[in-house]
Amino acid sequence: MKILIINSGSSSIKYQLMVMPENEVICSGMIDRIGLEISNIAFKTASDSLEELLPIPNHKVGLQKVAEMLLDPQKGVIKSTSEISAVGHRVVHGGSDFTDTVKIDEKVKLKIKQLFELAPLHNPANLEGINVAEEIFNSAEQIAVFDTAFHQTMPETAFKYAIPNYLLTENKVRVYGFHGTSHKYVSEKAIGFLEHNSKIITIHLGNGCSMAAIKDGKCIDTTMGFSPSNGLIMGTRAGDIDQSVIFYLIKNLNYTADEVNAILLKQSGMLGLTGYSDLRDIESEAEKGNKDCQLALLMNAYRIKKTIGSYTAALNGLDAIIFTAGIGENSSYMRKLVCTDMDYFGIELDDEKNAVRSKEIREINTPNSKAKVLVVPTDEEYEIASQVYQLLQN
Amino acid sequence: MKILIINSGSSSIKYQLMVMPENEVICSGMIDRIGLEISNIAFKTASDSLEELLPIPNHKVGLQKVAEMLLDPQKGVIKSTSEISAVGHRVVHGGSDFTDTVKIDEKVKLKIKQLFELAPLHNPANLEGINVAEEIFNSAEQIAVFDTAFHQTMPETAFKYAIPNYLLTENKVRVYGFHGTSHKYVSEKAIGFLEHNSKIITIHLGNGCSMAAIKDGKCIDTTMGFSPSNGLIMGTRAGDIDQSVIFYLIKNLNYTADEVNAILLKQSGMLGLTGYSDLRDIESEAEKGNKDCQLALLMNAYRIKKTIGSYTAALNGLDAIIFTAGIGENSSYMRKLVCTDMDYFGIELDDEKNAVRSKEIREINTPNSKAKVLVVPTDEEYEIASQVYQLLQN
Repeated sequence: MKILIINSGSSSIKYQLMVMPENEVICSGMIDRIGLEISNIAFKTASDSLEELLPIPNHKVGLQKVAEMLLDPQKGVIKSTSEISAVGHRVVHGGSDFTDTVKIDEKVKLKIKQLFELAPLHNPANLEGINVAEEIFNSAEQIAVFDTAFHQTMPETAFKYAIPNYLLTENKVRVYGFHGTSHKYVSEKAIGFLEHNSKIITIHLGNGCSMAAIKDGKCIDTTMGFSPSNGLIMGTRAGDIDQSVIFYLIKNLNYTADEVNAILLKQSGMLGLTGYSDLRDIESEAEKGNKDCQLALLMNAYRIKKTIGSYTAALNGLDAIIFTAGIGENSSYMRKLVCTDMDYFGIELDDEKNAVRSKEIREINTPNSKAKVLVVPTDEEYEIASQVYQLLQN
Repeated sequence: MKILIINSGSSSIKYQLMVMPENEVICSGMIDRIGLEISNIAFKTASDSLEELLPIPNHKVGLQKVAEMLLDPQKGVIKSTSEISAVGHRVVHGGSDFTDTVKIDEKVKLKIKQLFELAPLHNPANLEGINVAEEIFNSAEQIAVFDTAFHQTMPETAFKYAIPNYLLTENKVRVYGFHGTSHKYVSEKAIGFLEHNSKIITIHLGNGCSMAAIKDGKCIDTTMGFSPSNGLIMGTRAGDIDQSVIFYLIKNLNYTADEVNAILLKQSGMLGLTGYSDLRDIESEAEKGNKDCQLALLMNAYRIKKTIGSYTAALNGLDAIIFTAGIGENSSYMRKLVCTDMDYFGIELDDEKNAVRSKEIREINTPNSKAKVLVVPTDEEYEIASQVYQLLQN
């Protein structure tokens, strides 16, 4: 059966049309930099590859563009939307309502909407994707795969905050964790690849960034918490910050809570430190001598290094660290910064191997490195398609 | 000269009358559990020792009680307050205004007051102490020693948040770090004691809790940030928490920002998790089988373990960890939890040595332990007296 996967990120749509269970990709692509002046549009089949630059103001226009390309007779992908059996939607926040993949109905949509405040950059884009997909692919099953599911194995010591217990029992305030589909996929890939694989740390560095400590295949801790806003430094998100800063800005500088939230989500992170949110721009500026960009890259790497240390303590050991997602797979510079001065942890990067660009899983440590350093290209689309297929078989 | 040291904590006053530079302690003591139903009052000279239980509703009454005991003819400590040359006040938050010890004038007091919102549990108690001391010890120099000073050696990668740069340059939002006097004192003691002392981690566990990574005697990172509210789990403070929880409580549960701040500072931490804020009560309940208490102790230790890992990465190595302050010096149970399953870091506790109670610096690891584990009783009063004495010599 044909399954279309839609993964709406904060500023992107990744899509992939697959035949399952054969795991055959009919076409795939991405619309990137949505909302910026010019968006990148990529579309690829086995025989055809297209890149376009067009302004795509929002996710709705982006998905309409995807449908248009799929139905384009010249591309010959599908003749009618009725060929698609199911649309699998990546949905970021499942709260405590969704611990597994589900068919989407009005009740599910309402719950996804009620979770907007927990994932304000993502759940709205996800719901928008669902609504547009219901119109365009109206004969297909719409199915939601939640980013929070993989992290449900965390022990209480990791998922509880040190706040009054009623905020957990009555208001469900706890660590959920995100990028679960990616952490699950790359950790399973890595476990197949590695000899020693009991204690691994996955480092997902994309527009959003998170890490997970994985023991014997199960997540035991992760950096994102109640929402995808904390932990590592991201493109526009601050990640971890002393909460007193929020009260200070509200009380002393007369910001509203909403304004502070917007600053921390949309004007912070690498953007707040450098004026740029795209890591490629920041690396190129840093090379030219821009001090803000140099410092921001070091800060970003420092927080990742500290989390490697922290999760090594949680695991009481370290077999491997895994880099994945846009930055993790492509930025040899960031990987180098993270692995520098980490020999206490048995991490020794091979600079030549690190410089290679590839779409394959690869080991980039020296032969002497006690901990392995892997780059594992993530494939959230395949992982989502598998889960959609399995649900439809039951 | 006689120097009186006043250290007003969130719920306690520690005081000590010293002759400097001889480092002779004439008398010392503590008023503990201020604001609770019954406070503990301790007073000690070389020949005399007194413990009283009295209700002490606030810091003003507490300091009046201290003065009364000092002047008590039966105790024979001083005949007149004019014998005291200087009062050294521990002040928690020096912001970016105070990077060193200073004589107190109206301008200094105003600045300490302006910093109330950055240390709402402490700076008000400190200023109260200064005001009462000015009345009672009116011929003495009043001098402030700031808790933030020792951390000023942190590099930018550690003290900057990933927020827009103007919040640092214009509004001074950054990591300051606290308990500096204690981290400085115990790290210097440990460095004198240890053979390998380049990379040490100090763990200050009292009513407030913080850790510092210290390289060659200088602080390179610490857990408390802009205010003393984040980092480790404390008696009533939550420590680290995803900031989105704050916005969620304000937007969805209709709390005000002030109410959320009060919850995180006064109703969270060990109190929020167990109903008890005193670790002795929590340990005794845990032994009786109280599940909330057992979990809270594990959560507390887990966060300390993760920070040991994190700072080992920052230091790229680990020579020793140092436990200090009320809980760190006295709770063999908490030390045991922290050091369990940490053999990757070369930490191996000697259970017999750990069980010994003592006021001396001591090593509690096994002979095989690669990293040393020390208990170093902190002496913030001596450290403050030294700094006061030095200032008055200039």
